[in-house]
Amino acid sequence: MFPEYDVIVVGAGHAGCEAAAAAANLGSKVLLVTMNMQTIAQMSCNPAMGGIAKGQIVREIDAMGGYSGIVTDISMIQFRMLNLSKGPAMWSPRAQNDRMLFAATWREMLEKTPNVDFYQDMVRSLIIKEGRACGVVTGLGHHIPSKSVVITSGTFLNGIIHIGEKQFGGGRVAEKAATGITEQLVELGFESDRLKTGTPPRIDGRSLDYSKMEEQKGDDEIVGFSYTGTKKPVEQRSCWITYTSQKVHDILKTGFDRSPMYTGRIEGTGPRYCPSIEDKINRFAERERHQLFVEPEGWNTIEIYVNGFSTSLPEEVQIAALRQVAGFENVRVFRPGYAIEYDYFPPTQLNHSLETKLISNLFFAGQINGTTGYEEAACQGLMAGINAHQKAKELEPVILKRSDAYIGVLIDDLISKGTEEPYRMFTSRAEFRTILRQDNADLRLTELSYRLGLASQDRMDKVISKRDGVEKIKDILKEISLEPNEADGFLAENNSAPLPQKQKAIQLLLRPNITLDAMIAGLPKIQQALNGFTDEIIEQADIQIKYNVYIEKEKELVKRMNQLEDLLIPENFDYDRILSLSAEAMQKFKRIKPRTLGQASRISGVNPSDVQILMVYMGR
Amino acid sequence: MFPEYDVIVVGAGHAGCEAAAAAANLGSKVLLVTMNMQTIAQMSCNPAMGGIAKGQIVREIDAMGGYSGIVTDISMIQFRMLNLSKGPAMWSPRAQNDRMLFAATWREMLEKTPNVDFYQDMVRSLIIKEGRACGVVTGLGHHIPSKSVVITSGTFLNGIIHIGEKQFGGGRVAEKAATGITEQLVELGFESDRLKTGTPPRIDGRSLDYSKMEEQKGDDEIVGFSYTGTKKPVEQRSCWITYTSQKVHDILKTGFDRSPMYTGRIEGTGPRYCPSIEDKINRFAERERHQLFVEPEGWNTIEIYVNGFSTSLPEEVQIAALRQVAGFENVRVFRPGYAIEYDYFPPTQLNHSLETKLISNLFFAGQINGTTGYEEAACQGLMAGINAHQKAKELEPVILKRSDAYIGVLIDDLISKGTEEPYRMFTSRAEFRTILRQDNADLRLTELSYRLGLASQDRMDKVISKRDGVEKIKDILKEISLEPNEADGFLAENNSAPLPQKQKAIQLLLRPNITLDAMIAGLPKIQQALNGFTDEIIEQADIQIKYNVYIEKEKELVKRMNQLEDLLIPENFDYDRILSLSAEAMQKFKRIKPRTLGQASRISGVNPSDVQILMVYMGR
Ligand SMILES: Cc1cc2nc3c(=O)[nH]c(=O)nc-3n(C[C@H](O)[C@H](O)[C@H](O)COP(=O)(O)OP(=O)(O)OC[C@H]3O[C@@H](n4cnc5c(N)ncnc54)[C@H](O)[C@@H]3O)c2cc1C
Ligand SMILES: Cc1cc2nc3c(=O)[nH]c(=O)nc-3n(C[C@H](O)[C@H](O)[C@H](O)COP(=O)(O)OP(=O)(O)OC[C@H]3O[C@@H](n4cnc5c(N)ncnc54)[C@H](O)[C@@H]3O)c2cc1C
Repeated sequence: MFPEYDVIVVGAGHAGCEAAAAAANLGSKVLLVTMNMQTIAQMSCNPAMGGIAKGQIVREIDAMGGYSGIVTDISMIQFRMLNLSKGPAMWSPRAQNDRMLFAATWREMLEKTPNVDFYQDMVRSLIIKEGRACGVVTGLGHHIPSKSVVITSGTFLNGIIHIGEKQFGGGRVAEKAATGITEQLVELGFESDRLKTGTPPRIDGRSLDYSKMEEQKGDDEIVGFSYTGTKKPVEQRSCWITYTSQKVHDILKTGFDRSPMYTGRIEGTGPRYCPSIEDKINRFAERERHQLFVEPEGWNTIEIYVNGFSTSLPEEVQIAALRQVAGFENVRVFRPGYAIEYDYFPPTQLNHSLETKLISNLFFAGQINGTTGYEEAACQGLMAGINAHQKAKELEPVILKRSDAYIGVLIDDLISKGTEEPYRMFTSRAEFRTILRQDNADLRLTELSYRLGLASQDRMDKVISKRDGVEKIKDILKEISLEPNEADGFLAENNSAPLPQKQKAIQLLLRPNITLDAMIAGLPKIQQALNGFTDEIIEQADIQIKYNVYIEKEKELVKRMNQLEDLLIPENFDYDRILSLSAEAMQKFKRIKPRTLGQASRISGVNPSDVQILMVYMGR
Repeated sequence: MFPEYDVIVVGAGHAGCEAAAAAANLGSKVLLVTMNMQTIAQMSCNPAMGGIAKGQIVREIDAMGGYSGIVTDISMIQFRMLNLSKGPAMWSPRAQNDRMLFAATWREMLEKTPNVDFYQDMVRSLIIKEGRACGVVTGLGHHIPSKSVVITSGTFLNGIIHIGEKQFGGGRVAEKAATGITEQLVELGFESDRLKTGTPPRIDGRSLDYSKMEEQKGDDEIVGFSYTGTKKPVEQRSCWITYTSQKVHDILKTGFDRSPMYTGRIEGTGPRYCPSIEDKINRFAERERHQLFVEPEGWNTIEIYVNGFSTSLPEEVQIAALRQVAGFENVRVFRPGYAIEYDYFPPTQLNHSLETKLISNLFFAGQINGTTGYEEAACQGLMAGINAHQKAKELEPVILKRSDAYIGVLIDDLISKGTEEPYRMFTSRAEFRTILRQDNADLRLTELSYRLGLASQDRMDKVISKRDGVEKIKDILKEISLEPNEADGFLAENNSAPLPQKQKAIQLLLRPNITLDAMIAGLPKIQQALNGFTDEIIEQADIQIKYNVYIEKEKELVKRMNQLEDLLIPENFDYDRILSLSAEAMQKFKRIKPRTLGQASRISGVNPSDVQILMVYMGR
């Protein structure tokens, strides 16, 4: 009934959608099987994309030719570049989205992707032959053959929803859970465990008093996520900020004895970095208040998302507590907050390509790997989709290094360190964060992706012209000299010391108060020389020149690390004979089987001395 | 936690949405409780509104101030006025809709209705005190008080889905079923039973060969549904027509031994008038082919609805059979067709106000009453919403007579005849169908609704100006006389005999070939006199003048039928000789053997025309 597909993707969440798009655009025949075609790319939790470190990931996905950036741009109702007061390495784009438009746009883009077929059903098991995944079996009993399989089951595997003392099965509220896959994989020797996450109540915007909150407007200029120059909205919707109080906390505490978290009904570990409000009260008992972001769910809807108030306390406690929040005195709740527990597979069971070690041609991506967040899921989906295609076509796996992208950091962290609580990306997880900026993801990644056949010619052309433009600007600024009488007025205006003598323009740019924009505005010679370059290219040149020292330092570090990083550890390396290894290192090396010395060095519990011993044994 | 509401509506399907809007617009505080706020006003089956008799209902809902007509106009992708070749009593508007836009528009309109609150949860029982409904209890255990309750649970009560030999619980595919309400009501003395309905597979439009099908375009001019002058789309999408064949039927038959219908797994009775394809093959064995309508699901989606191919056969049989349909040789299926069985409450347990006889302040509307179709559900919702408001405010119930509206026919049929199979509206069910036209629903109903406080002033003003305009035109046409030399050229052109003498203009209009439009175009005197009247008013005057005789005849007939109520039918009356009876009436008369003509007329499925034929054979 079904032809053989190159790649079957199970689940159309953020991971599954990217996986399907990537594999299809590389030329694989793809089948996207999902439980409900009406919920493709549903945002289970907050209607927002990006933010610190996550925004960088979305730009990286876009640079590779993924869709998340474009979908976000098309469906955004507000955009802000976070951390603008810090260095450009910290700038992080964040968008508030129209929830329904986001899902509709994703679906439309997938429908327009020629190699993607769709099928609505639950996958209940995999077809495995001789240690190789070669298809899926659906709830209706169909056997669908394929060369590779990507599982992106999100929070659906044996999902259980908790609200106060109530609990019931479900993959999201009002949606069924998925069953069968965990049981089969465990039988095959996989290890699985439970995690939990939570979501805040959704409320009626008409019941709020906004005069008691602080307005948070979008940026005047929308940078957006995609490098393709998507059309940005003309108007934006505001968000609002308000706060909990001691009183709110006191009311919440009255529900703790009925909380599924504190009574032991939830076994799974929750996200440390997206904690529930009850968690925050507990862990930061000294804090008198917590910030709440009041976020609209779309252009026209009255539904509001209460960011920061994730909770699984009994609903009457949720509401009584909310009513004490400034502006929420008369709040009406549409749907209560809840927690959900689900199965994940500790990601140390994966290779860097996201293929499982135990079963070949089987890939895992997204929340199933113990992560949390749309962006984390989407970027894994992208890489799993690429590698499922590569595997189906018997091509080499594609692996991003830690110095290439946050995506590389994320996957490397997951597979070498594992995670025992929902993993979220932070800038602090990256050692090369001056290189891994949101403004240069295209320069870092598009060429690689273009060579694979994923990023389009158009994207590549844009990158070349950006890269060339930046080099041209650098050359021009190295060439032009400025006399003190030409520059001193401008410098004084910008609180910068006068020139001691004639100087290259590029030198001026290294001064802390001087930006390239200011130079263009204040120095006619520069203005004339740089006439015709786009804002994006000028900004890029500015950043590259200004932060050159830091960037070079980091690049040096990367090179040094890479020499170690890439040193391959032979497969089936016999750790048992290295008696001088620490017991913990021995155990972890044998379990994780690191591919390179770099990876070995980052395993939690492994000491530098263990790595040195290993090097010696490898003949270095 | 919740205030007391005037009206609680359970379920946000087509019935529930209209109920909530009507009660709220009349001034009730309304709470709409539904299992999933993401599926408000979901079209469970075909993405189309209206059609024969159903189109009239949507216009009636609109004339009363309901929302279905407006939502349909906003979200339509194609419009056709069916039956234009027949008399205006048969004209029936039908729209193809964008499924997602339809639901989104409904939700937006409800959100903009000030008195409607929302709450997402399953209602598991009712609060009943002294034989009176006064609230609901939700799955999470909330007791929400109210003065009236409207239940519109659709296909969700103990829903079971069937595909071939597979069966599983659900209210629609991938949605949970609702439980608790049936059990409580049965305990209270209600009778409940099972019905079933089905839906065809959804397929990938990219896999079809349209060159093998007939294109069906929308009308050049879109009349639409709402009398408020909603904006109509500029472009439209085409539908396509193709056919089954003997080969298709043969393949389908190979699945009959695994069909849930023929193996007895489905106990509920299915819709006689929306039969599954397997039903059609069985019941009309002589037909070599059946028509299929290939309908797009929206503006941009590739998803296609195969109207006419509803089935619950095993999926591989569905697909193998579809592949034999012209243009479907390479079809890819997104989701299989399926059948669903659910609880309904035989509607003889209701009063004309849709309040239950057993429990006061409790109203049922929609599929729970044994009907099928969005339009049938929506109009019941409207009336139940109105009457739940009236009851909450201790006002008189509002009841539409059979001569007022198809809505009146529908409700009267339901509560006096009951139904043993899903009830669908037909023009033949109405004895006043020359009066109950799609073009005059506003003239029939808006004033009543306006006096209630539901239809807006604006609607009422429009009706007054339409009504006055029509009367003015009638007066003008009665006044103007035409000499033979003035009219004969025009008459000859329109194949009509010359005037024997001077005649009133209105007389001309009674001639079969002459329309008012033609008179305006061909007779300068008429053109001048009717200058400034809108097309709608001119058309209305035309119809009223032309059909006046028929309307009068119809009224006479009904009077006679009322007198014959007690006329005895001879025992052992030989129905077999009355070949002009409908098959359904024949079957039922022979089984039930009615004693009087009145009793015969109240048997479900027996149409007024059947009773008239019977009368003739009894010598009346
Ligand atoms: C209640 C809740 C709260 C959350 N809170 C947060 C938060 O605070 N912060 C945060 O960053 N993230 C949060 N998330 C997580 C965020 O939603 C996920 O990280 C993200 O959606 C994961 O994407 P995914 O693609 O892995 O899975 P999902 O988006 O969950 O998508 C999984 C898809 O797979 C389908 N599917 C599953 N199993 C099968 C099967 N067997 N066969 C066919 N289809 C299947 C499902 O129908 C679904 O379409 C929350 C999620 C939930 C449900
Ligand atoms: C598979 C299928 C095939 C169909 N085929 C046809 C057809 O061929 N022709 C045709 O004319 N019609 C068909 N229909 C019927 C058509 O969909 C319905 O007539 C119409 O939708 C009924 O409207 P409703 O408002 O009564 O219920 P629905 O549209 O079913 O809506 C019911 C709503 O109530 C909610 N709900 C139910 N129980 C509870 C509860 N206890 N608490 C809270 N919320 C609750 C549900 O979530 C849902 O939102 C089909 C329906 C289905 C499911």
